[in-house]
Amino acid sequence: MLFDTLTILGVGLLGGSLGLAAKSRGLVRRVVGVGRDAARLREALAAGQLDESTTDLAAGVRIADLVVVCTPVDLIPQQVRELAEVAKAGCLVTDVGSTKSEIVARLRDPLPNRVTFIGSHPMAGSEKKGSNHATPDLFQGRVTIITPTADTPPRASQAIHEFWERIGCRVVTMTPEEHDRAVALVSHLPHAVAAALAGVVDPALLCVSAGGFRDTTRIASASAAIWEPIFRTNRREVLASCAAFAERFDEFRRLLEAEDGPGLIHWLNEGKRVRDALGS
Amino acid sequence: MLFDTLTILGVGLLGGSLGLAAKSRGLVRRVVGVGRDAARLREALAAGQLDESTTDLAAGVRIADLVVVCTPVDLIPQQVRELAEVAKAGCLVTDVGSTKSEIVARLRDPLPNRVTFIGSHPMAGSEKKGSNHATPDLFQGRVTIITPTADTPPRASQAIHEFWERIGCRVVTMTPEEHDRAVALVSHLPHAVAAALAGVVDPALLCVSAGGFRDTTRIASASAAIWEPIFRTNRREVLASCAAFAERFDEFRRLLEAEDGPGLIHWLNEGKRVRDALGS
Repeated sequence: MLFDTLTILGVGLLGGSLGLAAKSRGLVRRVVGVGRDAARLREALAAGQLDESTTDLAAGVRIADLVVVCTPVDLIPQQVRELAEVAKAGCLVTDVGSTKSEIVARLRDPLPNRVTFIGSHPMAGSEKKGSNHATPDLFQGRVTIITPTADTPPRASQAIHEFWERIGCRVVTMTPEEHDRAVALVSHLPHAVAAALAGVVDPALLCVSAGGFRDTTRIASASAAIWEPIFRTNRREVLASCAAFAERFDEFRRLLEAEDGPGLIHWLNEGKRVRDALGS
Repeated sequence: MLFDTLTILGVGLLGGSLGLAAKSRGLVRRVVGVGRDAARLREALAAGQLDESTTDLAAGVRIADLVVVCTPVDLIPQQVRELAEVAKAGCLVTDVGSTKSEIVARLRDPLPNRVTFIGSHPMAGSEKKGSNHATPDLFQGRVTIITPTADTPPRASQAIHEFWERIGCRVVTMTPEEHDRAVALVSHLPHAVAAALAGVVDPALLCVSAGGFRDTTRIASASAAIWEPIFRTNRREVLASCAAFAERFDEFRRLLEAEDGPGLIHWLNEGKRVRDALGS
């Protein structure tokens, strides 16, 4: 057992799946869920994602040895400050937010009660939302990026590293800035592109679409309320990725406009080489 | 049985799968494959995709009641003219090409031997290539667009319609121009976008990518040699789709640049509405 009590703040797809994974792998003695909606918490409890639940932040947090914050990225810094006020001395806190620079910067000053915060980003998720889609395998084989800073006690980093590893993840350590640059390209940009692609298609044409459209636009079904703060809190890097993409896409348009066959084949093969390296 | 002899010109993923589907559903008495590579034809024969094979176009075509041309789009018009010269009188010819206006226009003048050509486009395929990936279910439940013209004998249209339906497809009739406009948006544009997305990512970052990147870029692995002529023969419509997409994508950049949260949520929800209408 790594921790006695794990408290999950925000029990949706990620929080619920984390509860299931931590319990099924015996990493903690109990999982406590904290949320605003008592009915939803009862569902997560009934689904075995939690052992206890409460809508009272202080009650859920003061018994925790590890708190994982699974709420929208723009809420995380303030919530971590609030929960640190009522936390057990020396409590570890991490999150699952998709951006890291802003969160880590806003939590740089020491927290009350010797609470340590370390940023985490498990690269797991789905276009689906809510703890009713939770599964103990959501994190299995996925990468989790952790972003300790120069001020992070090595023992705390190690504990968080081990936690994600035993949840089933491959753990990669980056600076918050490296993280935000990387995910802008491999996650946030694809999301904006998928939404733009879906947005230009007349729904009447969907009846003739096939697997290509289905795959390229799948993540456009994700929640706008979750994604808007992700884009906002990684604005600079997302805009840089958009600029790189727009330049590359314009190259395609110029080659096609010019009927440059060999140029188009070369351009297509450059993308193919990258995608082939990923595997199917 | 719909036809005695079906000859498939070009036995790759689509041709091989068509042979399997036609045989397993008892639509034809025999399937003859015509290709350039005798070794590959032998493999398709051994895999049960064909009953007979030949590298001699005339030998394979003169016994056919239906010929389906499964070669790259830029070769189709010339090949149809050539095979019509040696075809049985009244033979039906169709294709599986991803563009239609140029092919149909170039085959508007009457063909020899009272051969009738009707354009077809089964919206089936894969980023994989070659008859070794063929499967009898490739067309199952997919849409096939057929593009008869005012000159097409209704009996011929009906026969082709029934053929695809009994192969397992939902058949939609369009003009070649309607077809090219629709697939530019739902197929060709997503392909260019996926290739551009893959093309801006440093392969070193692939280790932190997740399902979103995997899905949005999957079709970037397709063959450049197959896709370059598709883009070229649907150049005008693809460029129009690219312009619509670029405009919509720029809107995202402007909203993010301006930190317009409600505007971003509205923009994301417009794409989500379209994608949700398609289902998962």
